[in-house]
Amino acid sequence: MSKALLKTKEALVLHSGGQDSTTCLAWALKKFDKVYLISFDYGQRHKSEIRAAKTIARRLKLSHETLKLPILKELTKNALTDKSIKVKTSKKGGLPTTFVDGRNALFLTVAAIYAKQKGIPNLVTGVCQTDYSGYPDCRHEFIKSIQKTLTLAMEFPFKIHTPLMFLTKAQTIGLMVKLGGLELLKYTHTCYEGTKPACGKCPACRLRLKGFKEYGIDDLIYYR
Amino acid sequence: MSKALLKTKEALVLHSGGQDSTTCLAWALKKFDKVYLISFDYGQRHKSEIRAAKTIARRLKLSHETLKLPILKELTKNALTDKSIKVKTSKKGGLPTTFVDGRNALFLTVAAIYAKQKGIPNLVTGVCQTDYSGYPDCRHEFIKSIQKTLTLAMEFPFKIHTPLMFLTKAQTIGLMVKLGGLELLKYTHTCYEGTKPACGKCPACRLRLKGFKEYGIDDLIYYR
Repeated sequence: MSKALLKTKEALVLHSGGQDSTTCLAWALKKFDKVYLISFDYGQRHKSEIRAAKTIARRLKLSHETLKLPILKELTKNALTDKSIKVKTSKKGGLPTTFVDGRNALFLTVAAIYAKQKGIPNLVTGVCQTDYSGYPDCRHEFIKSIQKTLTLAMEFPFKIHTPLMFLTKAQTIGLMVKLGGLELLKYTHTCYEGTKPACGKCPACRLRLKGFKEYGIDDLIYYR
Repeated sequence: MSKALLKTKEALVLHSGGQDSTTCLAWALKKFDKVYLISFDYGQRHKSEIRAAKTIARRLKLSHETLKLPILKELTKNALTDKSIKVKTSKKGGLPTTFVDGRNALFLTVAAIYAKQKGIPNLVTGVCQTDYSGYPDCRHEFIKSIQKTLTLAMEFPFKIHTPLMFLTKAQTIGLMVKLGGLELLKYTHTCYEGTKPACGKCPACRLRLKGFKEYGIDDLIYYR
């Protein structure tokens, strides 16, 4: 690929429709000239996520695409794609039942393939190791490693941006306030149960509520 | 995952049905107690590859599964999935038209997810940097990097075995002779055009024929 096609001022945001990736989107809009959005449909029980992502893209008049990755549900057993498994936080030394093996590795790999076709080296993702709930693929070390792997794989200078990596949930809300994007959080979906209003009880809801409480403002979505 | 579930004597071979991965299969059968096979259907024009993989698995009475990854064809333009693009070797500094962006990164990631569900840390793949035709994701450096990435992503001690990495095609044939698996090559498919008998003219056929010639024996498949 010739250098002329390397669009260093453009970025692809991996947008789940949740609070974190929407904050990343607001961050990317300040940092880059042009922003594209993709979401992944991997058979997650919380489809409202994808609907939320579409709503936000529409409101911001941004290009948005949903990529289907049924392979993840075919291969793994976890509480996010299988309703018969209960959502549980991690037991000592174990992984939480919501951990989907290889999810971020797969998403970033597919996102990188997608981005390269457009000449975009910048990928933005909302992973965060502060509140990482025991997910190994949310750690900085993993992101550094996959950035190198993808760059080697395609001989293309990918840069993976993780603006939330070292923030607490409360700090993430603070960032969104600073970026002037707080209103957008009204359209986001976080609840693992996929209900609307949100359940308020699953680990994802609890983490979100804790963040708003610590930051000292009310959440903008409804809870049961 | 408890240590009891780590099956260090078992391996998953990424088996395309071609000469290289079939040689890897013969290698894995000597090295491991139990061997599983997977192939990927990513919309490649040479479907005979997958048929070859199934035939070989059946002859050896091994477990074989074909995983569908249509996303690769949806996202990339290349001569292997698009018949309107001519198969061409690389121009100076460019990639060959048969290079599929991110193919090995995607295959290894999905294979690792699949293997982990069975408790298998060993992945075997036929990539080779000697005759690598300009494919960046066939290099040793890439394999080292993705092994680390996948291990971090899933907190599982993956080991990616690449027995052909530094061999020429002729040496790969020599290895197969030593392993006593030469007969198996009769059932393999290499041709990019996907024809049977093989075209004998595409880069893949030419590389295969050159290998047999250098090693000093006749190929076991038919050419046009």
